[in-house]
Amino acid sequence: MARWKPNARERLVDAALELFHERGYGRTTVDEIAARAGLTERTFFRYFTDKREVLFGRSGDLEKGIADAIANAPEETAPLDAVVGALETAAARFPPRRDYRARQRLIAAHPELRERDLIKMASLASAIADALRARGVVDPAASLAAEAGIAIFKIAFERWVSGSQPRDLPLQIREALGELKTVTAGSTGHSPASRTAPSKKPRTRRAAD
Amino acid sequence: MARWKPNARERLVDAALELFHERGYGRTTVDEIAARAGLTERTFFRYFTDKREVLFGRSGDLEKGIADAIANAPEETAPLDAVVGALETAAARFPPRRDYRARQRLIAAHPELRERDLIKMASLASAIADALRARGVVDPAASLAAEAGIAIFKIAFERWVSGSQPRDLPLQIREALGELKTVTAGSTGHSPASRTAPSKKPRTRRAAD
Repeated sequence: MARWKPNARERLVDAALELFHERGYGRTTVDEIAARAGLTERTFFRYFTDKREVLFGRSGDLEKGIADAIANAPEETAPLDAVVGALETAAARFPPRRDYRARQRLIAAHPELRERDLIKMASLASAIADALRARGVVDPAASLAAEAGIAIFKIAFERWVSGSQPRDLPLQIREALGELKTVTAGSTGHSPASRTAPSKKPRTRRAAD
Repeated sequence: MARWKPNARERLVDAALELFHERGYGRTTVDEIAARAGLTERTFFRYFTDKREVLFGRSGDLEKGIADAIANAPEETAPLDAVVGALETAAARFPPRRDYRARQRLIAAHPELRERDLIKMASLASAIADALRARGVVDPAASLAAEAGIAIFKIAFERWVSGSQPRDLPLQIREALGELKTVTAGSTGHSPASRTAPSKKPRTRRAAD
């Protein structure tokens, strides 16, 4: 089934996942990944900046797809609905969740992968906020809707990948939006600290500051 | 004014910030930081795991303070209000914002610091979710309230540090909560994608998947 250039990226990803599984992430080199895929190290670096990136190779496309979907949402769509709609559309095209399970275990086990994952999410949040600003949404609403979208996506994705029931990701996203609406609607908008006058009780913990 | 052991941590932080400013973050070594503070490298590593950590040294205390405040919120407090109240209380004890400006510029300029910052925020989100679960808040509400709190904190902190007007951080946090409530209340709970029947138009982009 060896095809050539057109799927070099996929072959590198498959080879990397195989090797990470066989020898562990830390003991696998870029050179070995390229060799397993029948390619050169140089080709590897044409597709990925480093070993970590193999697990996040499509994040640029994902980000662009989500930003475009926000740009193309009907004008009257509320900011958070534009964001969540874009996330659902992207999620509907994700590979089956079994393909993510090994990847998520690797990320959880390696702080350097966790950092890369967080950077990707932060980058996605920026792209979403930019796309909202381009629609005329002002800050802080643009940043907050973007961060809220990321929160929804993260939680939906975790539930999707780790859940015992194979519910689809777009549905998990929609449910998480509903839950976030409930959580924020339940807030009075005031914290206990801002509702109550400062206590006269000596604040002994101050001394430890 | 040289005092000894009791404020070794503060001296190391001050020395590090001075050196980062003078020579740049990349060109400053742990050894140099320790020397400038009149301490040994070994003492440095008693307080910080690496050079990056100097800029995040109090994050463990912050996390613990916030988790404790959530644990101690009145029983009837809504989850998100418990989170935001804890963040406001912590924020009220932050040093003046001028102390954060140089730090934030450094973080923005160095991806490895940005990664560390994101890890700290992710760790804070986990600690907040755990504190909510300990109060009996179930998932996904616990995770969502935690992520929403982090989103509020991030945006309030950015506005506080970079803003032209010296408004206090707890106030920025309270305002960001209000804005998040507006953003989520503005959502219909349905995305454009989930409201409309699937288009019959051929999905030409499928072919590129």
